[in-house]
Amino acid sequence: MASAGRLRIDVNRLGARLDALGSVGAIAGGGVCRLALSDEDRAGRDQVVGWMKALGLSVSIDAIGNVVGLRQGSESGPPVMTGSHIDTVRTGGRYDGNLGVLAGLEVIQVLNDAGITTRRPLAVAFFSNEEGARFSPDMMGSLVYVGALPLDAALATTGIDGATVGDCLTRIGYAGAAPCGKASVHAYVELHVEQGPVLEAEGFTIGAVEGVQGISWTEFTVRGVSNHAGTTPMRLRHDAGFVACAIANQARNIAREMGGSQVATVGALDLSPNLVNVIANKAVFTVDLRNTDEAALQQAERRLHAYADELAAAEGVTLSSRPLARFEPVDFDPASIALVEQIARGLGHSVTRLPSGAGHDAQMLARICPTAMIFVPSVGGISHNVKEFTSPADIEAGANVLLHTLLRLAS
Amino acid sequence: MASAGRLRIDVNRLGARLDALGSVGAIAGGGVCRLALSDEDRAGRDQVVGWMKALGLSVSIDAIGNVVGLRQGSESGPPVMTGSHIDTVRTGGRYDGNLGVLAGLEVIQVLNDAGITTRRPLAVAFFSNEEGARFSPDMMGSLVYVGALPLDAALATTGIDGATVGDCLTRIGYAGAAPCGKASVHAYVELHVEQGPVLEAEGFTIGAVEGVQGISWTEFTVRGVSNHAGTTPMRLRHDAGFVACAIANQARNIAREMGGSQVATVGALDLSPNLVNVIANKAVFTVDLRNTDEAALQQAERRLHAYADELAAAEGVTLSSRPLARFEPVDFDPASIALVEQIARGLGHSVTRLPSGAGHDAQMLARICPTAMIFVPSVGGISHNVKEFTSPADIEAGANVLLHTLLRLAS
Repeated sequence: MASAGRLRIDVNRLGARLDALGSVGAIAGGGVCRLALSDEDRAGRDQVVGWMKALGLSVSIDAIGNVVGLRQGSESGPPVMTGSHIDTVRTGGRYDGNLGVLAGLEVIQVLNDAGITTRRPLAVAFFSNEEGARFSPDMMGSLVYVGALPLDAALATTGIDGATVGDCLTRIGYAGAAPCGKASVHAYVELHVEQGPVLEAEGFTIGAVEGVQGISWTEFTVRGVSNHAGTTPMRLRHDAGFVACAIANQARNIAREMGGSQVATVGALDLSPNLVNVIANKAVFTVDLRNTDEAALQQAERRLHAYADELAAAEGVTLSSRPLARFEPVDFDPASIALVEQIARGLGHSVTRLPSGAGHDAQMLARICPTAMIFVPSVGGISHNVKEFTSPADIEAGANVLLHTLLRLAS
Repeated sequence: MASAGRLRIDVNRLGARLDALGSVGAIAGGGVCRLALSDEDRAGRDQVVGWMKALGLSVSIDAIGNVVGLRQGSESGPPVMTGSHIDTVRTGGRYDGNLGVLAGLEVIQVLNDAGITTRRPLAVAFFSNEEGARFSPDMMGSLVYVGALPLDAALATTGIDGATVGDCLTRIGYAGAAPCGKASVHAYVELHVEQGPVLEAEGFTIGAVEGVQGISWTEFTVRGVSNHAGTTPMRLRHDAGFVACAIANQARNIAREMGGSQVATVGALDLSPNLVNVIANKAVFTVDLRNTDEAALQQAERRLHAYADELAAAEGVTLSSRPLARFEPVDFDPASIALVEQIARGLGHSVTRLPSGAGHDAQMLARICPTAMIFVPSVGGISHNVKEFTSPADIEAGANVLLHTLLRLAS
């Protein structure tokens, strides 16, 4: 272990595996479509399992299709784990998830080539259906893995195409024998592309992820009265479209005034009848609020609803809302975050702390062990898109930080 | 003429004609579909022409299909004219337009029955394609009638179904021989349902219409950058949806701050990709601004565009706009407006002055003669809808005001 500090990953070898996996389910424009538990997902799984076995890992598959490749340490006990997912959205990129899994394999290969045995075992995992693009909820595999979702419920889940998780797992040969829900993991570190613009915009190579934002999705429905846009004075209007737009505007105001990690997005908005000269009698729109702090997120929700209720009353429209999703924020392990920072600096990379705005398997693992994530820049912040791209230099930097974080945790 | 002041229309007779014409092209829910120059329009025209002839009017049809029924006066010269249109939108009501034409016929019948000959000739007209629901522009017949649109251009207009005005006029037998564009009219008064909520909401029976609001329709297109609603901090957003909603909000602010007749409506708004967790990269929306005062309307336009340009620059999005429609306000004749008011009061009806928010044939006639309009309440402000309704009592009041206004103008 004396020379371990000088170990570096081989970015060309890692890039070759990214290219090879990216060719499975490839779509026009350089992207990938490997929806969870589809034929393409099976082909991708078979590829990665083949690599795991070639690297000497002992592969186990559990009942929800999570795959773990284990490398023995000099001592037994719970492994230090890395990993991510290899399923994609319908128009996915080549890096989201895949990078974390294949960087884990690259770390194993580096250690194999150097003849290094870590004290603790190391594990590289990929979890089923992280994206949730075919089966809801997302992060299903890691949820079941940590015991937060019963296996039976997950297996019975019906997808957008009518198929169930259980049937699909059997069909693709990934309904494994390993038990679910009682995992024992010493620590978990996941390398992932940022999927946002912060690192690139602010000139950092490495993000030490502090946690995952809490998410609050609400769908609002406003019902007003359709009337002629010319003949109806402002004082006699019950304009569902105006109320929707004013609430959207207020969502931005709330995010701006609260600052910090608070974000607010009105991404979907539909008016009826949606005609130039008719006051809308109905508006349906969504508000996506996120914050790393649960109390602050609740405050944002309260402010938004209070404004919406007051405005609806003033305009004489009816307002209803229903939650579409609600997750509390997840904090990663402070010592692990500090370790990622320290190692990144030690390797000469610029590093900043930031929250994750998207969900990741790591937030589930955080329920059972000290957990951290390493982010590398996404060019233009683009993800879930065939144009998703992270430069080889940033991939190399991130994988080296992963290598040395795992080495430290496993020593 | 000594007893003329005591003349009253017969609301049952007028109601029977409204019912009869409403049965031509009747649709479910009590409405009417008689698109301009369709078979249903021909059947309605034939019905009204039959009534005109039965009332002894000499009927002339001009080259754009406008129909004028003339009743001789004791002197010759330009007639005092009333009228409106009998074409409807696809889901039209029974009153819009029809009331003005049939109330004109009722006035003729009252005078016939009383044996009264006015000094000036009286005319009852219905103009082709007022609605513009099949052929654009709307108010086509009256535009040609006053010489503001060349006949050839109107005849060559292609409708939404590919047919031309000229062909349709020939097909339905209403390509008449009377010349267009050189009409001579002494005065014009049109009775119409308000198509808005003001009279009902404020408790007035009669509206003395001061003019027609100027109309400014603009379509805005905002192009921003789609990004993840969780991973993109507020400061790095280029959110087309936010910009659209903020401009919609500002349109309301402008209308509220300017007051008077200023109205502003964002009736149509579409986001792309219109997903809950994706910042919109594109928003297309319309702003409908109206004011009775041209200078004020221009001010509203300037304020809106200035705000939109500033906001787009601040958000880092591109903004383009195109005018969809622009009409200057029309002022009716002050003496004629005062006459309508005076007669309504003399008949014991509550009356208020108000602008028309919708376009009417009267605004075209205002180009060639002193013009006024009489509004009666629309229940719930509803029009262009099968539920359009005006009570018999209000119809009776409006038709009596029309009767005595015409008598005064023709004497």
